[in-house]
Amino acid sequence: MTKTVTIAHGNGGEENNELIKKIFYKHFENDILAKSEDAAVIEDGKLAFTTDSFTVSPLFFSGGDIGKLAVCGTCNDLAMMGAEPKYMTCSVIIEEGFSTRDLEKIVKSMKNELEINGAIVVSGDTKVVPRGSVDKLFINTTGIGEIVHKNISASALKEGMSILVSRDVGTHGATIFAAREGIELESSLQTDCASLYPQIKALIDANINIIALRDATRGGVSAVLNEWARSSNVCLEIEEETIPVQEEVRGICEMLGFEAIDLANEGTFVLAVAKEDEMQAFDVLQKTHITSAIIGTVTELHKGKVILNSSWGTKRFLDLPTGELLPRIC
Amino acid sequence: MTKTVTIAHGNGGEENNELIKKIFYKHFENDILAKSEDAAVIEDGKLAFTTDSFTVSPLFFSGGDIGKLAVCGTCNDLAMMGAEPKYMTCSVIIEEGFSTRDLEKIVKSMKNELEINGAIVVSGDTKVVPRGSVDKLFINTTGIGEIVHKNISASALKEGMSILVSRDVGTHGATIFAAREGIELESSLQTDCASLYPQIKALIDANINIIALRDATRGGVSAVLNEWARSSNVCLEIEEETIPVQEEVRGICEMLGFEAIDLANEGTFVLAVAKEDEMQAFDVLQKTHITSAIIGTVTELHKGKVILNSSWGTKRFLDLPTGELLPRIC
Repeated sequence: MTKTVTIAHGNGGEENNELIKKIFYKHFENDILAKSEDAAVIEDGKLAFTTDSFTVSPLFFSGGDIGKLAVCGTCNDLAMMGAEPKYMTCSVIIEEGFSTRDLEKIVKSMKNELEINGAIVVSGDTKVVPRGSVDKLFINTTGIGEIVHKNISASALKEGMSILVSRDVGTHGATIFAAREGIELESSLQTDCASLYPQIKALIDANINIIALRDATRGGVSAVLNEWARSSNVCLEIEEETIPVQEEVRGICEMLGFEAIDLANEGTFVLAVAKEDEMQAFDVLQKTHITSAIIGTVTELHKGKVILNSSWGTKRFLDLPTGELLPRIC
Repeated sequence: MTKTVTIAHGNGGEENNELIKKIFYKHFENDILAKSEDAAVIEDGKLAFTTDSFTVSPLFFSGGDIGKLAVCGTCNDLAMMGAEPKYMTCSVIIEEGFSTRDLEKIVKSMKNELEINGAIVVSGDTKVVPRGSVDKLFINTTGIGEIVHKNISASALKEGMSILVSRDVGTHGATIFAAREGIELESSLQTDCASLYPQIKALIDANINIIALRDATRGGVSAVLNEWARSSNVCLEIEEETIPVQEEVRGICEMLGFEAIDLANEGTFVLAVAKEDEMQAFDVLQKTHITSAIIGTVTELHKGKVILNSSWGTKRFLDLPTGELLPRIC
């Protein structure tokens, strides 16, 4: 591996995986970590435990801020393991000179989002560093949730199962890009940043057997699909036309030369269920987002690979995102 | 409060408390957080849960590095609640261009220290940010421990109890200061950074009833004593001459105009026990550090205050540290 860490090492894609495996997994090696799920399962399967640091820039953007993001990000990782968020820690690193009014605004956003999840902050840490040591403010949140739906796993996908997305994809990445570049948007594009536990609870309450579940953050839907294909050693065949993308996101993607399916989301998940649960799961998802969709099927065509089928009948591989993408997206 | 966050707001003393209370506690308000202990007690008193972010500069220093510090810091906060460290998360924010060799060195230090604690990293996060967005590397560790000695509390001190320190004070602060200023030291001064659970286990195994326990990190022994005096509404009378300080630390303090008792430690704790347990506790502490000492007694002379008695018979109040102290000490 290269001698220095590059921006690509934080992209949520191929290079990011390499850094994690060659340095962190290698030394911290243990069975729980090796599962590489959104959250660790501990205490005989009773609790889920996960961490995330947030470095998003700008701190405030259309539809959210770093505080909302920090609570959603960690609570969503718990929700993705079928866990109800319960306890959270909050550790903030603040640059000297940061506005206390902005700090309070961020903390209030966190509080609002905690209430949606029914979780509380039980422990915290505050560090203030001299000007130039950090760009404004970073937040770490680490959460514990109580597992209410067991055995959700990236390794459990089998032939014939269905793949769904909970809403249109790529809005967080597109929003942050637009905010950073000062692009004036005609319509009301905003981040999808939202707490997902209420939707997961609705699926559980509808007795849907969730096979795999993951929020499509860094690396987007592409990263989730590729991880699932590898972990379960199956092929995921995705119907390209069914992937929901807002017009405005599509426009920004054209400017960027990106695919919406590679862009980060902060309130969008991918779900795998048995074929017979497909329509009921779709009905539940539709109640929150009319743009939710059934996007593909698990097959055995090319094990470990994701295939995009076009409406013209052509097929191409969808790879794990590589390269720089957008740093400080979350 | 002031309109911007200042370095003093991160000092572990008076201003730090103000920031935490007026912004974080105010909005995150709940019974567990309000206890303001080193770690939150959750799950009906079974588990302890705590977080810490590490921003120390330089990353490598005499006797340790940021990785060792990050594991000791969080595991020690668990140990201070009478908990055996079990699970940890590790979230790293890395500046673009950081050496992968140094990163691996840091991760190896973490691994070594985790083994001493018998804990494992079960979940992690890696963010890479562009040059200038962070100064080299910050680490957050968040830990869960299993409580093996219940009811340790800063609010439980009563008249007649004894106060001990586990070793000589101020070495971490003095070491970091010397490293940063390029001061050549004649002797072998190094940080006290160490995992404290083995010592706590020895106290528990000796059947000592631990009343209060806290590692004297930012704000030093002064901050711990003042918090205890306030939380328990008692007076702590400390015999100034009994506070153990290395000659070299004393020298650096004179240069700085600081008191060793205000300096940060990363492997030194303050302990309160009943008078009848005092000698046995002292014997256990002596097995690890010959510099450990009995430093004072709980009285009712000035409730909520700490008093330093000099060998000349004079008395003065020991206040919570204020002002800038040393930023990026941990």
